[in-house]
Amino acid sequence: MSPTPLLRVTVWSEFRHEKKNPKVAALYPLGMHRTIADALGQHADLVVRTATLDEPENGLTVEVLEQTDVLVWWGHMAHGEVADEVVARVRARVLEGMGLVVLHSGHYSKIFKSLMGDTCSLTWREATDKERLWVVCPSHPIARGLGPYFELSAEEMYGEPFGIPTPDELIFISWFTGGEVFRSGATWRRGNGKIFYFRPGHETYPTYHNPQVQLVIANGVRWAYSGLRIADSCLNQAALEPLPIDAEAGLRSTEGHR
Amino acid sequence: MSPTPLLRVTVWSEFRHEKKNPKVAALYPLGMHRTIADALGQHADLVVRTATLDEPENGLTVEVLEQTDVLVWWGHMAHGEVADEVVARVRARVLEGMGLVVLHSGHYSKIFKSLMGDTCSLTWREATDKERLWVVCPSHPIARGLGPYFELSAEEMYGEPFGIPTPDELIFISWFTGGEVFRSGATWRRGNGKIFYFRPGHETYPTYHNPQVQLVIANGVRWAYSGLRIADSCLNQAALEPLPIDAEAGLRSTEGHR
Amino acid sequence: MSPTPLLRVTVWSEFRHEKKNPKVAALYPLGMHRTIADALGQHADLVVRTATLDEPENGLTVEVLEQTDVLVWWGHMAHGEVADEVVARVRARVLEGMGLVVLHSGHYSKIFKSLMGDTCSLTWREATDKERLWVVCPSHPIARGLGPYFELSAEEMYGEPFGIPTPDELIFISWFTGGEVFRSGATWRRGNGKIFYFRPGHETYPTYHNPQVQLVIANGVRWAYSGLRIADSCLNQAALEPLPIDAEAGLRSTEGHR
Amino acid sequence: MSPTPLLRVTVWSEFRHEKKNPKVAALYPLGMHRTIADALGQHADLVVRTATLDEPENGLTVEVLEQTDVLVWWGHMAHGEVADEVVARVRARVLEGMGLVVLHSGHYSKIFKSLMGDTCSLTWREATDKERLWVVCPSHPIARGLGPYFELSAEEMYGEPFGIPTPDELIFISWFTGGEVFRSGATWRRGNGKIFYFRPGHETYPTYHNPQVQLVIANGVRWAYSGLRIADSCLNQAALEPLPIDAEAGLRSTEGHR
Repeated sequence: MSPTPLLRVTVWSEFRHEKKNPKVAALYPLGMHRTIADALGQHADLVVRTATLDEPENGLTVEVLEQTDVLVWWGHMAHGEVADEVVARVRARVLEGMGLVVLHSGHYSKIFKSLMGDTCSLTWREATDKERLWVVCPSHPIARGLGPYFELSAEEMYGEPFGIPTPDELIFISWFTGGEVFRSGATWRRGNGKIFYFRPGHETYPTYHNPQVQLVIANGVRWAYSGLRIADSCLNQAALEPLPIDAEAGLRSTEGHR
Repeated sequence: MSPTPLLRVTVWSEFRHEKKNPKVAALYPLGMHRTIADALGQHADLVVRTATLDEPENGLTVEVLEQTDVLVWWGHMAHGEVADEVVARVRARVLEGMGLVVLHSGHYSKIFKSLMGDTCSLTWREATDKERLWVVCPSHPIARGLGPYFELSAEEMYGEPFGIPTPDELIFISWFTGGEVFRSGATWRRGNGKIFYFRPGHETYPTYHNPQVQLVIANGVRWAYSGLRIADSCLNQAALEPLPIDAEAGLRSTEGHR
Repeated sequence: MSPTPLLRVTVWSEFRHEKKNPKVAALYPLGMHRTIADALGQHADLVVRTATLDEPENGLTVEVLEQTDVLVWWGHMAHGEVADEVVARVRARVLEGMGLVVLHSGHYSKIFKSLMGDTCSLTWREATDKERLWVVCPSHPIARGLGPYFELSAEEMYGEPFGIPTPDELIFISWFTGGEVFRSGATWRRGNGKIFYFRPGHETYPTYHNPQVQLVIANGVRWAYSGLRIADSCLNQAALEPLPIDAEAGLRSTEGHR
Repeated sequence: MSPTPLLRVTVWSEFRHEKKNPKVAALYPLGMHRTIADALGQHADLVVRTATLDEPENGLTVEVLEQTDVLVWWGHMAHGEVADEVVARVRARVLEGMGLVVLHSGHYSKIFKSLMGDTCSLTWREATDKERLWVVCPSHPIARGLGPYFELSAEEMYGEPFGIPTPDELIFISWFTGGEVFRSGATWRRGNGKIFYFRPGHETYPTYHNPQVQLVIANGVRWAYSGLRIADSCLNQAALEPLPIDAEAGLRSTEGHR
């Protein structure tokens, strides 16, 4: 067995709330992406870099994406400022095999919506809800190391109905004090890429300092890694078996079923 | 029980091959959409109209879509000519609850790709393949009235891998003479809308005159009908249960799992 | 269009708690099955009968099942007393196309476990929890007529993880006062039969008198109806296309992939 | 990163055809299980043992299963001779987290049918069909190392409809010369266990000597490994949040939805 390859992670964030809201800046002085990246960087198999909206090409140049196995995405107030060509570039890399971990308000990012093909809408409330995330698929690698549930003492509420395609795998369902539930951890495949959506992480709470949240993101990154890069193609394929000789077959009337 | 409502179907087609290729014109003198619409019109519960690319607003005005319960889509050479705002309008209606039946080369239409969020790529060959469509979900209403399989004596080949999200339901798998297989009938939900993709229907073959193909399309139209119109929303929701009083709860450190 | 056929429903129940526990008897003097059947009987398209454990052959003779399109199942304390041959008979009918609606503690019935192939385990608590059922698939016919959620002011709690195969469709998720969540409405196909599991209905609460619960059961019965009866078979099938002549082909070494 | 643990595989087979049919004995002198086990044993991360029907307790004692991470299963003519208590023991281990790879005619084994909850029926033909297995999910680890397809020059035909629950993941679809198709590689989760069904392997063909088949089985074994052992439980759970005090709440009439 060859040694496990190092997995190259890029943590992307808007990095706007931190500059405008002192409460957020107090929680994440260097930005949420930095907190998330530092937590991932504790794992010896992960090589982590960051990228943010206000860098050239939104920080996601061809070179950066070439060197990214899994991309982690946090966006909220500036979804519309991500350039369409950057979204197209990220999308193409996901379809080739790059993993994508979408966090919290990223549910409404251009990239997530374009890969889901759905509304991605939900209900929400900024209040003092406690969130309890129940593990509904205990054997899934994304739940490894967790107990039956874990809690966040204060979070924004997201509620059902969540406008997503039926997940391939549903891993977490959240309970909120105010009375709602939410499918807060779910996975999908698109092309050769694997996508994990994970709900927690409102900017005014210390969610990304939480050890369970950090563990889930690390688990999600490893799960989303495919190691693949398969270009999209729509090939004209030669026949593998002999075809009928009759060139006019196409104009014969079609036959019925038995 | 109230009587079953009449179901309003719009059959949309590019209507280009028929004008350029005499072989296609011979098969479909009034256009493929007309042949499909006439077949659907035989069913007393269906009220059918048509729309085509070169009509104003690509034939899909707000009014037409308002009066459409299920839209049938055939496109091929002119996918790029469908206006983006028309695609957005159709997409919004699907997410509200309008049904969508996508035929054959529509796999690469803007509307199908935007709802799948995937490559929608496949392999293909224009030759004299026989296609045999096997029913893999015999109890599905879309397969009603069919035997274990039905055949088309000549069709274009579409082969796997087909770049689609895992279907909610897989109904047909095709066998081709040249040696390929294809998931040729599959369904998905997006928003409140139901989507059915059905493979057969290359323009140079008399496929839409085939009684089994006509039956599947009628079954698919009825299956895709939801009768719903639910606007997309992302609501701010008031708490249904008492929340903690502590306004600073959000800054308390989060708690661990049991 | 021919008129919608009458749908024949059999509501089966253990009918034991009602005879032993005065609290249950006060709520359901004629048995829970009678309350459920009376509610279903309000619908003109449903023809309803009942059957109970202590009748000959547990009330589910060949004749009864022959005349049943959809079976509703409530069991709890006496799962083990249902005869194995009755379970096998019901199972065979489901696989042929009979619908099955399994209620509450029926999650641990022999019939449900045999069709799921899974543990069907969960966590539970008999207390004064409020249950709020959120609709996560608003376009599903089983949710027709409901708002975004409905509530039961007191119910037994069932919590995740629920040991079921990934549902084909997830329709409800429950929130409980005590802090848990549960996938409380879900569907599967087995053979040609359709199965709906619906959580509420502990015997010491008036749940089956609740109009929303009654509506969901009626919706579920209609959804589970297939109108099909397809016998299970494992057929030896003659080739539809010419096979190679070489009778010894089977012993030739196999070929590689391209 | 700790080194990858050694994965303990048990290859189980009936080992009957080899003793009765000289043609089978010529292909598999020591039994099919031995050929499969030897191929798996080439991988340094796999520790492989075998077990067969005619050993005490069908070779699957408590001790053997305790030491098995993934079980590979081949059975055909003697499904009925596997003891019910052995099947129950294997089933319990799968639900705890043991992986299960079911081969070919194992589709009708007691263990596979009990975990699927479905008919598991199909159509079949023993002839000189060529089988071509197309990869429909190229990014799946079970397809790693394969091209777009691979071929077996002669195999028994299995055809649709295959009476299985909707697979969590569909990996292969087979094309047969005689005109049929089949979902020949699919996965499911049950409890904490992962199950992979792989079609090829009729006893009169040299299928298990084929390098692609051997690769798929090794990939499948690694995919099915969870490393988990979680006992099934149905726990009475204490409330995590305060409950209403009113002990009679259960008898109040239930409330409506908004």
